[in-house]
Amino acid sequence: MDFGEKYAQYSNEFNGALNEFCARLDCRPQILAESLKYSLNLGGKRIRPVLTLAVADLLGVERRKVMNFALAIELIHTYSLIHDDLPEMDDDDFRRGKPSNHKVFGTGNAVLAGDGLLNTAYSLLLKECKNGTEFISAAEYICDCAGVYGMIAGQSADLMHENDESYNEKTLDFIYENKTGKLLVAPIVVPSILCGGRCFSELKAFGKDLGLLFQITDDVLDVEGSFEKLGKSLGKDGKEGKYTSVAVYGLNGAKLRADVLAERCRTLLEGIDGDAGFLLQFVDFVRSRKA
Amino acid sequence: MDFGEKYAQYSNEFNGALNEFCARLDCRPQILAESLKYSLNLGGKRIRPVLTLAVADLLGVERRKVMNFALAIELIHTYSLIHDDLPEMDDDDFRRGKPSNHKVFGTGNAVLAGDGLLNTAYSLLLKECKNGTEFISAAEYICDCAGVYGMIAGQSADLMHENDESYNEKTLDFIYENKTGKLLVAPIVVPSILCGGRCFSELKAFGKDLGLLFQITDDVLDVEGSFEKLGKSLGKDGKEGKYTSVAVYGLNGAKLRADVLAERCRTLLEGIDGDAGFLLQFVDFVRSRKA
Repeated sequence: MDFGEKYAQYSNEFNGALNEFCARLDCRPQILAESLKYSLNLGGKRIRPVLTLAVADLLGVERRKVMNFALAIELIHTYSLIHDDLPEMDDDDFRRGKPSNHKVFGTGNAVLAGDGLLNTAYSLLLKECKNGTEFISAAEYICDCAGVYGMIAGQSADLMHENDESYNEKTLDFIYENKTGKLLVAPIVVPSILCGGRCFSELKAFGKDLGLLFQITDDVLDVEGSFEKLGKSLGKDGKEGKYTSVAVYGLNGAKLRADVLAERCRTLLEGIDGDAGFLLQFVDFVRSRKA
Repeated sequence: MDFGEKYAQYSNEFNGALNEFCARLDCRPQILAESLKYSLNLGGKRIRPVLTLAVADLLGVERRKVMNFALAIELIHTYSLIHDDLPEMDDDDFRRGKPSNHKVFGTGNAVLAGDGLLNTAYSLLLKECKNGTEFISAAEYICDCAGVYGMIAGQSADLMHENDESYNEKTLDFIYENKTGKLLVAPIVVPSILCGGRCFSELKAFGKDLGLLFQITDDVLDVEGSFEKLGKSLGKDGKEGKYTSVAVYGLNGAKLRADVLAERCRTLLEGIDGDAGFLLQFVDFVRSRKA
């Protein structure tokens, strides 16, 4: 099976679980349920759940053990996109080529849709807590990554430094590590936490580098990509005075950094006992992606 | 010790725990930590934590067991107020006589402050999960009350029915039960869940009636009260086409309903084995409050 087929297998498996989850979601009023499902079903590459399933396979952790964690992380990721797209935040009218949640349901409902997804993620995680202490630890790890010492700290710093001329490499590192980085580390280390922490530090380092690689290739694509392929407004970051890795290191500097990060990812994976073939190809996929 | 003294004792005990919690909260950027603490320290009557401590005393549950649950519920309550006050929601510039979070920190930061408080509430709850299955059950109960089958459903219905002429008693019941009701049931039943469910159904019924009593007296005060005493914009509900119990039942009808609910609360409390003196006085305090 080649990389594309394996990727599709993982993402289809996840989408199956997500569909079941959405089918059970029958909260009222209808607009609330609809707005949650709208954003969950906008598509996207399902990078986080694919990573969780792949690492579970690498470590020999049963996939049914990790699925609710993968769901919870995708719900948290989706809530963060809904709130990030709001007019008072990044003010983005498009997400994955379709109208943002608040463009369809209005800003008030979009705030509630985000709140609802975050809360529902914890509903899934608390259910898992009954399975044992390692499940509680995994839930806590996700919570730390998503919270005020993780993703929300990154979003807050990002908002604060809009149009800030004193913005520098250190600020960029803080934002990238927290805003996008930590919620890419979480799906990678969860399977490790569930099997007693095997390869935890290697996987955490891998997740950190992969998250940064993903963010930098995103910046490069924002300059070089096309609307059709990315499905979101392009060149927006520069226009609004947001500094990115391209602004800080230059286009070629950013690409060089991406190469170094990809190489570090490969080295970390090769140090892990097991078949890391898919994850190695995943690194190449992120480095060379065009969308 | 009279009611006022006992109330002050409970709320001071809670505020002590909240102060300790705030002192440990050192997330970056500073504006994030400040915006969280601003709303947590706006004062308020601390009704929910006072109820938790009082029910814990009634059932003989150690207070140190319930304190993090009381904190988590107050954080969830505070996040809901921040998001509710946003321009796209209730659009309220004042909260407890002081500028709303978004008036001080801006709407973007207010969205994040709410998200941060919700996430931090779950961080507290997940820590408690390690203490045993009854702690997990209590955390799940709170999550259900706060989520898309609870508070968020109520907020969504409230938003949907603004200026809706087909609004009726049934809609009002749904909004009151969910938007404010469930997060008043949670602090009352948590101590029961932590001691194996003693008096669970009586306390749940009591919480439901007390929540409705609280909401109806709030509506009456919105018509009869004064800005100085309430610390929020008055007569706002009617102005914006929001139906309230006063709009549905009339002022005297609403007061009569409040009397019936207060009497039901007393009957439920009298059926519980133990010293419910403080909680009985609490009912009178809610029924006759002027602010």
